[in-house]
Amino acid sequence: NHIIVCGAGRVGWQVAEQLSKDDVPFVIIDSHIDILQQYGQQNLLFIQGDAREDDVLRQAGIDHARGVVAALPTDADNVYIALTAKGLNPDILVVARADRMESEDKLYRAGADKVVSPAVIGGRRMAMSILKPASVEYVETVLHDKEHEIDLEEIVLREHSPLTNKTLAEAQLREKTGAMVVAIRRGQELISNPRASQMLLPGDLLIVFGTRNQLTAFELLASAPKKP
Amino acid sequence: NHIIVCGAGRVGWQVAEQLSKDDVPFVIIDSHIDILQQYGQQNLLFIQGDAREDDVLRQAGIDHARGVVAALPTDADNVYIALTAKGLNPDILVVARADRMESEDKLYRAGADKVVSPAVIGGRRMAMSILKPASVEYVETVLHDKEHEIDLEEIVLREHSPLTNKTLAEAQLREKTGAMVVAIRRGQELISNPRASQMLLPGDLLIVFGTRNQLTAFELLASAPKKP
Ligand SMILES: [Ca+2]
Ligand SMILES: [Ca+2]
Repeated sequence: NHIIVCGAGRVGWQVAEQLSKDDVPFVIIDSHIDILQQYGQQNLLFIQGDAREDDVLRQAGIDHARGVVAALPTDADNVYIALTAKGLNPDILVVARADRMESEDKLYRAGADKVVSPAVIGGRRMAMSILKPASVEYVETVLHDKEHEIDLEEIVLREHSPLTNKTLAEAQLREKTGAMVVAIRRGQELISNPRASQMLLPGDLLIVFGTRNQLTAFELLASAPKKP
Repeated sequence: NHIIVCGAGRVGWQVAEQLSKDDVPFVIIDSHIDILQQYGQQNLLFIQGDAREDDVLRQAGIDHARGVVAALPTDADNVYIALTAKGLNPDILVVARADRMESEDKLYRAGADKVVSPAVIGGRRMAMSILKPASVEYVETVLHDKEHEIDLEEIVLREHSPLTNKTLAEAQLREKTGAMVVAIRRGQELISNPRASQMLLPGDLLIVFGTRNQLTAFELLASAPKKP
């Protein structure tokens, strides 16, 4: 149930750093062993090889992996990895890097579940930094903050959760935990900024924002056995 | 009161696209005129020249510009632009791109107000896409959504705003507008996920999340003359 990171350049390395921080097991593949020295000694699983080859992906455990991150610097290579990975394990989640805008569509057609373009999101972040600096600070706090321990968490409501078949107002989540439901994913629909009258249903994925303690309290509340 | 975008590569171009969408006036500087053909005909102010030169930045109107985006592909060039821009106009806002992690500190010391690394935020976004795909969808909706017209807005409370010296609960912003205060910037402090008991003070910068209509209603409410 691990993640395979293909490519240990600046982008792939950042993926690995983030997975480390979140204690998610991963293996990183790169054809250059000397890239490890560049980053200093680290305790990590590394395979020296070409991530485009079936054998290398098999060696990285693609048959039982949860996801593949295709972060090679060339879009054509990432298209190839997406096709290979989905061929070897159709259930695997593939996140691919695109450098050129026109590659995005090709990556999705090759089977990628999500395409990320560092240049596009970097450029947008720069524009937003000029226009709405406080909002950038807020977004970066939500996404990356370690000091304040603020985070977004995803919580799926099981059928027997005491929160189901209540409105947000009735569930009193904010009052009881301090955490805030910022969005609800229901099937294909994303309900952003849900109203107090919004009904919570079994299977809803709640996107919840708060401190670590608030989120833990929220998870406990969501999973408590329902009162008869 | 315009923005100067230095560099029309993939990152700089994305900045320009975003500024266009938000109807913010800007001029773009690049030494290669042929870059314009690459993107097709567009109605934009373009200066062919070296953005590291005082004369070129002066020609771009640096003395009365609101901000400079240093998006050249080489970090050393962006350091140089930051120093030059702040030298020519100490009040200007400088947002700089960093490709290498070790440049970040140098860019801040050169006077940049904000440094953005596309590789770092791209890698983080990729990791988050594997671990919390619905949260990524939510964040991207907030930041870039055009279809649902959902956005973050920054609203400064003036002294005579009817919202000042009330708690969030008393102000009934959510009930009256549908928009949600997700954070408050007060001086150096960022209050994320403020509680209902939080007092609103003159000078507070509210970060508000909602649809276009909700945000407009919020702005009207915040700027209405105070009842005696
Ligand atoms: Ca976090
Ligand atoms: Ca938006």
